[in-house]
Amino acid sequence: MRFLVKDMDIATGSSFVAIINHYDAERLDLHVGDRILVSYNSRQITCIVDISESHKAVPPGKLGLFEEVLDKLHVRDKQAVKIELTTKPESIKHIRDKLDGRTLGYAELLHITDDITNDRLSNIEKTYFIAGSYIHGLNLQEIIDLTKAMVQTGKRLKFPGLTLDKHSIGGVPGNRTTMIITPIIAAAGFTIAKTSSRAITSPAGTADTMECLAKVDLSEVKIKKVVKKTRACIVHGGAVSLAPADDKIITVEHPLSIDAEGQLVASVMAKKYSISSKHVLIDIPMGKTTKVNNYKQARKLKKIFKKVGKKLGMKVKVIITDGSQPIGKGIGPLLEAEDVMAVLRNDPLAPADLKEKSLMMASLLLEMTGKYRNGKKAAWEILESGLALKKMNQIIQAQGKQKPFELGQYRYPVRSGKKGLVAEIDNLAITRIARMAGTPLDKGAGLYLNKHVGDKVLNRETLYTLYAESEFKLNSAVALARKSKGYVIR
Amino acid sequence: MRFLVKDMDIATGSSFVAIINHYDAERLDLHVGDRILVSYNSRQITCIVDISESHKAVPPGKLGLFEEVLDKLHVRDKQAVKIELTTKPESIKHIRDKLDGRTLGYAELLHITDDITNDRLSNIEKTYFIAGSYIHGLNLQEIIDLTKAMVQTGKRLKFPGLTLDKHSIGGVPGNRTTMIITPIIAAAGFTIAKTSSRAITSPAGTADTMECLAKVDLSEVKIKKVVKKTRACIVHGGAVSLAPADDKIITVEHPLSIDAEGQLVASVMAKKYSISSKHVLIDIPMGKTTKVNNYKQARKLKKIFKKVGKKLGMKVKVIITDGSQPIGKGIGPLLEAEDVMAVLRNDPLAPADLKEKSLMMASLLLEMTGKYRNGKKAAWEILESGLALKKMNQIIQAQGKQKPFELGQYRYPVRSGKKGLVAEIDNLAITRIARMAGTPLDKGAGLYLNKHVGDKVLNRETLYTLYAESEFKLNSAVALARKSKGYVIR
Repeated sequence: MRFLVKDMDIATGSSFVAIINHYDAERLDLHVGDRILVSYNSRQITCIVDISESHKAVPPGKLGLFEEVLDKLHVRDKQAVKIELTTKPESIKHIRDKLDGRTLGYAELLHITDDITNDRLSNIEKTYFIAGSYIHGLNLQEIIDLTKAMVQTGKRLKFPGLTLDKHSIGGVPGNRTTMIITPIIAAAGFTIAKTSSRAITSPAGTADTMECLAKVDLSEVKIKKVVKKTRACIVHGGAVSLAPADDKIITVEHPLSIDAEGQLVASVMAKKYSISSKHVLIDIPMGKTTKVNNYKQARKLKKIFKKVGKKLGMKVKVIITDGSQPIGKGIGPLLEAEDVMAVLRNDPLAPADLKEKSLMMASLLLEMTGKYRNGKKAAWEILESGLALKKMNQIIQAQGKQKPFELGQYRYPVRSGKKGLVAEIDNLAITRIARMAGTPLDKGAGLYLNKHVGDKVLNRETLYTLYAESEFKLNSAVALARKSKGYVIR
Repeated sequence: MRFLVKDMDIATGSSFVAIINHYDAERLDLHVGDRILVSYNSRQITCIVDISESHKAVPPGKLGLFEEVLDKLHVRDKQAVKIELTTKPESIKHIRDKLDGRTLGYAELLHITDDITNDRLSNIEKTYFIAGSYIHGLNLQEIIDLTKAMVQTGKRLKFPGLTLDKHSIGGVPGNRTTMIITPIIAAAGFTIAKTSSRAITSPAGTADTMECLAKVDLSEVKIKKVVKKTRACIVHGGAVSLAPADDKIITVEHPLSIDAEGQLVASVMAKKYSISSKHVLIDIPMGKTTKVNNYKQARKLKKIFKKVGKKLGMKVKVIITDGSQPIGKGIGPLLEAEDVMAVLRNDPLAPADLKEKSLMMASLLLEMTGKYRNGKKAAWEILESGLALKKMNQIIQAQGKQKPFELGQYRYPVRSGKKGLVAEIDNLAITRIARMAGTPLDKGAGLYLNKHVGDKVLNRETLYTLYAESEFKLNSAVALARKSKGYVIR
């Protein structure tokens, strides 16, 4: 069956869709959600059918394709493609099994992961997989198998030297330890290739923050060059195809803020395994308003991380840290980058909490290699001597220095309504206010915290200053802060 | 924030989508799946955001809208609309609760059902609701509440006289009892307004089959006229908005063939309640290859149906019937319509199984009214005397007679490979072959069964004849039948 391509000039970012006229759909007995195999020359791709009721958008005999499909097929507007009916992928059966509470094996998880990676499953089908895994849970073997399947269906990078890595579970604004630990570890002579994420729900991800200083969307070849030169990198992982199924799973988890334990561990460990890390330090911040709320949950997660790591031949250390309040003074990409640089410069005004946590984690990583008895002393010396700053500047230079960003010029001090002690800071409220002010896309937006938990405040004293790049966003953030400041003063 | 409408000229059939340029998306911090409120004059509608990466499809400052949204807003290409950011609907929280295993109350289920009815939830969000309800199940009170919520968010129809109704759970090809029971009940003086469905996965639904004889897509006004005139109708329920949430739920159940017990009962009972039925007969066919496979499951379903009916003030009788093989001789819309008319005409060659089952069900319905001691005798007399046929012709006349359809001219006899007795017939295999031959859209396609379970067959004797409207479809069906005929001969 031949159809002429109509370039719909839309990029959907999700599954591959092909639109046919309702007349053709009836003739071929095709329904919305059915699958067709579209071929052009030697290339072929499975698309999910959508139907156009009008003749204007997609006339009979035409096949409306979106950007991603045109790119993959190397086909252009008005060229002829062949379509064939195709059955549902085998993986639908496995998803159905998971929904019915059965345990999946490696082959089945590989099948599902492969189909997700290659966009052969619709959002509805992916959602059933996530829902089944979330409600019934994944057992240890399933998590290991899912991790392996995610690695298998993506790229793998290898670097010279002993490769170390770290990961912090999200939920604590300002937790930018990666940008301090990485230069310390590299300066000590080990390899540490950080592929970080951008913020999904937080005010800034490590990739967003590093981007204030250096380019982060690097090709695989460029990453290898940077690591060869400096033993380190801090780049955006999205640009390289490491465990690509993970990002596609996140898309369907996002609408309901699902964060299934098994998926979380598999996601983190697959990325570490894909860049051949040998020693991995996992940081689980625990607090009332973080992802992990209590010791029981934290300890369970710790156990799973260690077991999965062991099975995959990685040495994994897990620490449970204080997640009760934001870390550092700045919240938002540029403000966080300034905190990081202040620590690396040994600035006396640098946030002590960020410095301490980073040094503690760096020293644990150094000790994990077996080459340091007193990691703390070593890490401290590398930082104090200026070697870490020098290394950071090398990394920035190698990745490509950015032209400087500026802090938002629209500012507003949020003050305490009474005198007392800061008893609590709500990570979620701070995050909402920062995002309303424009983070993470407006690099210069965010909050600068003057007060942390335990600090004394006077009535009308400034708790934090809001920064925004437009008056509209400042006003929106101020309005939100008026409703809920995020501070409990007692 | 003002945008100019761009008519995308696409009908998606699912949730309301609005496409904006990636430049505007970044400026407004909007992501795929976020919600915006689009207003035009006094009308407004919540849309789910999609993002165009190119300037050609949706340039900055434009808002790409699909047919459904344009219609609801009464807005046209190039007119200006206002957009506002809006938060996720409250019902997302309730869906999250269900996913976490909590029980939902009436207000929460109404919230979800209302948002589904008004297309305020995305497919991903609807899928999480179905997955949660499927895995954790709905308890009796939740089923009752969901039924009420579905009724509440749809139309209700009232008819003069005592209204009876019946429903058969799907899964048995050829189970067209509705078209025989309805004229019998109406001829006996009761009201029976059947709003039936089209086939989703079966070879033919009652609506598809009735459409071979009469128009079935009738307006509410027309349905009322037909029922007033004949005391009955057999129409397509999709055209009237009875429990409209149900159809939108089915859309996301279909990809994984999910059929959650609670949803099933709520779906059936909401439709019965919406047309004010007083006495309802439910038929649960049980067999190896039907929806309900064993007595335990059947009895559980029976109990739920009865309890929900009682709570809603309906008298419900549930029968568990033989679902081990197809009913009647014809499978496919026109072939099934011919079986039905043969029974009504008292044709000696009419399929005895279809006749018997229909009479049994009609007699139970008559007895449920309390006005018949021997329903069987009454039903038999109405059929034998030709009154049922006369009534059916009245109904066909009132709904609007169709021009006759023709049986597919491409035919092929599928023969037995050995001598013996028919031990089993696989409903699923027969269904797949019929659909491959073109049912339900090709009215004249399908199978004519020469043999049922228990019949003797000689080697090379015809088990069934395939009918198709194109050579291509006949060949596809023959190829499938070669792989698996659907008959077990011993």
